Amino acid sequence: MPEPRPRPPKASPGNGVLLTDLYELTMLQAYFDEGLDGTAAFELFMRTLPPGRNFLLAAGLEQVLDYLAQLRFTASELAWLRRTKRFTPAFLESLAGLRFTGDVDAMPEGTAFFPDEPILRITAPLREAQLVESRVMNLLHYETLVASKAARCALAAGDRLLVDFGLRRAHGAEAALLSARASHLAGFTGTATVEAGRRWGIPIFGTMAHSYVQVHADESQAFERFAMAQRGNATLLIDTYDTERAAHRVVALAPRLAAQGIAIRGVRLDSGDLAEHARRVRAILDAGGLTGVTIFASGNLDEFRLAELRASGAPIDGYGVGTRMNTSADAPYFDCAYKLQEYDGEPRRKRSEGKATWPGRKQVWRAYDADGRFAGDTLSLADEPQAGEPLLVPFVRSGAAARARTTLAESRDLARRQMARLPEPLRSLQAATPPYPVVVTEGLRKLAARIDART
Amino acid sequence: MPEPRPRPPKASPGNGVLLTDLYELTMLQAYFDEGLDGTAAFELFMRTLPPGRNFLLAAGLEQVLDYLAQLRFTASELAWLRRTKRFTPAFLESLAGLRFTGDVDAMPEGTAFFPDEPILRITAPLREAQLVESRVMNLLHYETLVASKAARCALAAGDRLLVDFGLRRAHGAEAALLSARASHLAGFTGTATVEAGRRWGIPIFGTMAHSYVQVHADESQAFERFAMAQRGNATLLIDTYDTERAAHRVVALAPRLAAQGIAIRGVRLDSGDLAEHARRVRAILDAGGLTGVTIFASGNLDEFRLAELRASGAPIDGYGVGTRMNTSADAPYFDCAYKLQEYDGEPRRKRSEGKATWPGRKQVWRAYDADGRFAGDTLSLADEPQAGEPLLVPFVRSGAAARARTTLAESRDLARRQMARLPEPLRSLQAATPPYPVVVTEGLRKLAARIDART
Repeated sequence: MPEPRPRPPKASPGNGVLLTDLYELTMLQAYFDEGLDGTAAFELFMRTLPPGRNFLLAAGLEQVLDYLAQLRFTASELAWLRRTKRFTPAFLESLAGLRFTGDVDAMPEGTAFFPDEPILRITAPLREAQLVESRVMNLLHYETLVASKAARCALAAGDRLLVDFGLRRAHGAEAALLSARASHLAGFTGTATVEAGRRWGIPIFGTMAHSYVQVHADESQAFERFAMAQRGNATLLIDTYDTERAAHRVVALAPRLAAQGIAIRGVRLDSGDLAEHARRVRAILDAGGLTGVTIFASGNLDEFRLAELRASGAPIDGYGVGTRMNTSADAPYFDCAYKLQEYDGEPRRKRSEGKATWPGRKQVWRAYDADGRFAGDTLSLADEPQAGEPLLVPFVRSGAAARARTTLAESRDLARRQMARLPEPLRSLQAATPPYPVVVTEGLRKLAARIDART
Repeated sequence: MPEPRPRPPKASPGNGVLLTDLYELTMLQAYFDEGLDGTAAFELFMRTLPPGRNFLLAAGLEQVLDYLAQLRFTASELAWLRRTKRFTPAFLESLAGLRFTGDVDAMPEGTAFFPDEPILRITAPLREAQLVESRVMNLLHYETLVASKAARCALAAGDRLLVDFGLRRAHGAEAALLSARASHLAGFTGTATVEAGRRWGIPIFGTMAHSYVQVHADESQAFERFAMAQRGNATLLIDTYDTERAAHRVVALAPRLAAQGIAIRGVRLDSGDLAEHARRVRAILDAGGLTGVTIFASGNLDEFRLAELRASGAPIDGYGVGTRMNTSADAPYFDCAYKLQEYDGEPRRKRSEGKATWPGRKQVWRAYDADGRFAGDTLSLADEPQAGEPLLVPFVRSGAAARARTTLAESRDLARRQMARLPEPLRSLQAATPPYPVVVTEGLRKLAARIDART
C-alpha cells in the first residue's frame, strides 16, 4: 500500500503555482532552452513612501515562507499547461520536480523600514527565484500595506481598543483574512472576521447590525433580547433611529436586565458626529448609573479621524476600523519592486528611467540613540559590515528553515517595540522633515557606477 | 459502500462559512433563542458614486451564486465554534442543517447601474439572509469596484488591446483572480494571471521581465534567445537600459531571426514618457522595415493616462493595466450597503444620519431613447410596475437556479452593449452635469414617510 501523501504545510487558498504571471513561465521556458540555471538573487523593496508617510511596517513573511515551502506543480496544472500549447514537453517535464531549494533572508515581520531597503532577498536557482516573483510580491506587498496603515491607526488611537471591521469591503477573501492578521500584528487588538480568529487565534469581536434592531417591533425589545442572548457580553448598536433616545432606552432597560443578573457591556455608535454623540451618550449613561458601559464607535474611520476624535477628548473606549484601513485608502498600493540584483556571482542593475535600483546583494544596518530610538539606517552590500544592527536575517537555507518561525504574538510584540523606538517626528501622521536618514555606502555607490560604466 | 460525496459546486477559496463577521453569528444565536425566523428581504446597493464617476458596472454575481449554493457549516467549523464557548449547543446543532433555501433577484453581471439602485435582493429565512451578508458584500463589492474601473479604462482606450497586469499588487490571491475576471467582463481582452486563464478561459498574455534581460550578457542576446524560445510569439521588453538603443537592436536582430523563420511580435515600453518613446520606437521599427511589430505599453496606467496617451496620438497598440485598475486606486472602495428592507411582510427602513435607505422590496426600471440609449431609471416598489425594462430578474427560487447561469462571455457581451448604450455625457471620465436621472416613485416615497411616522 502506498504511504499516505504528506499534507503540504498549511496550504492556504491561492497558493497554487499557477497564481503567477504568464511571463514567469515563458521566461522559464526560455531559460530551460538556454540551459541557464545559475544562482540569482532578487530583492524586494519599496521605491518610495506614499505622501504623508514616515515609515512602513514589514508583514507577510509567514505567508511567503508557507508559499515557498509548498511550491510545486501538480499533475493537473502541468496537464493544463500542456493544453495551452505554449510550452515544450521537455520543459513541462522539468517542472514536475521543481521545489524551492534556495535561501531566504528577510526583515522579521513587525520591523519598521524605509524606501530602497530590501525587506526580503531570495537567492536560488534562477528558475525558482523568478517563478515565485508574482505571488511573493502579492503577499508581502499587501500585508505590508495593511500593517503600515494599521500601525498609523494604532499611533493615532493611543490606548483605545482597535478592532478590524473590514471584511465586507476588503478586496476579496484573502484580503479580508490577511488584513485581519496584518492589522493585529501592527497593534489592533482583534477582528470581527471569524475565520481569522480560527486560523491565527486572533481575538474576535462582534456587536450587532441595524437589521437586528429593525426586525424587532421596537428598539428596547431588540436590546433586551440581544443582551439576554449574549449573557452579559452584548454591545448594543444605538444609532438605527435616534442615538440619544436609544441611550435612554438602554438606561431604562438596565435595571430589568440586572434583575436577571445580566449586564450590558457597551453601546456602539455608527453614524453622525461621533464625538458629539459620544459625549451626549456618555452623559446619559452616567446619569443612569451605567458608568461601566463602554462606548464603541465605527463608520469610515482611519488614522486621521481617530486622531481628531482623540484630540476632541470624545469619551470613546474603542473603535471598529475597516475599509479605509484594509484598502489602505489614502495609498491603496505601494511602489513595490522585486528586482534581480545578482546573477551567477555578478551584481546587476536595472537602469530604466525613474526606476534604477541599487545593485548586488544588500544589507540594512540600523543605529540607535541613547534612548534606543532609531538614529539612522545604512544601506550596504551584504558583505560590507557597518555599525548598527543588521536587519535582514536568514530564514531559509537550501530550502529548509534556518530559524524557528516566529509566532504572530512575537511579531506583534516586535512591531510594538519598533513603534516605541520610532523617533518622535516619525510618529506624526504628517510627513516628517527631514525624512528618516538612510545612507548608501560608498561601496554600493561605487559598484553602481562600475556597472553603469560597463553596460 | 457509501456513495462518493457529491463535490460542492465550484468551491472557491475563502468560501468557508466562517468567512463572516462575528456579529452575524451572535445575531443568529439571538434569533434562535427568540424563535425569530420570518422571511427577510435584504438589498445590496451603493449609496453614492465616487467623485468623477458617472455609472457603475455590476459584477460578481456568479461568485455570489456559487457561495450561496455551497453554504453549509462543516463538522470542524461547528466544533471550533463550540470551543469558543460563545454559543449554545442547541443553536450550533441547528446550524448543521443550514442551507440557502431563499430567493435571489439581481441585475445580470455587466449591467450599468446608479446610486440607490439595488443590484441584488436576497429574500430568505432571516438567519440565511443575515448570515451571508459579509461574504456577499465582499464578493459583489470588489468585482463591481473593478468592473466599474475597468469599464472606464475600456472607454478611454478605444480599440486598443487591454490586458490585466495586476496580480503582484492586487490585495491578495482572490483579488488577483477576481480582478482578472471582472476586468475581462468589463472589456479587457485578457490577463497575465495564468490561474485566471485556467479557471475561466480568459485569454492569457505575457511578455518578459527586466530580469530576463539582466541575466544575459547583453540585451541583443536576451532578445534573440527569448524570440527563439517563444517561436514567433515574443514581445520584447526594451526599456531595461536605453529604450531607443534597444529598438535599434531589435531592428538589427530581425533579419537574423527571419532567416530561421522567426518573427518578432512586439516590443514593450514600461518607463519614461511612453508617448514620446512610442513615437521614436515606431519610427525606428518602421525605418527598419518592422512595420508589423506592435508596441505595447505598461507602467502606472489608468483611464486618465490611457485617455492622455490616446489624445496624444501615441502609436501604441496595446496596454498592460494593473495596480491602479485592480485596486481602483482613485476610489478603492464604494459606499456599499446590504440592508434589511422587509421582514415578515413589513417594509423596514434604517434612518441613521446620512445613511437612510429606501424601504421595501424594490425594482429598477430603465427607459431608452430612440437610439436605444439609457434615458432615465425609475426606482419603485417591486410590485409597482413602471414603464421601461425591469433590471432585477430572478436568479434563484427556493434555493434552486431559476435561470441558466450566464457564461462570462455572455456577461462580457452584455457589458459591451451596455457601454454602447450609455448616454454620451456618461462616457466622459469627468462627472456629467446633470448626473443620470434616477426617479423615485411616489409610492416608494409615501411608504418611507409612513414608516417614519410609525416609529
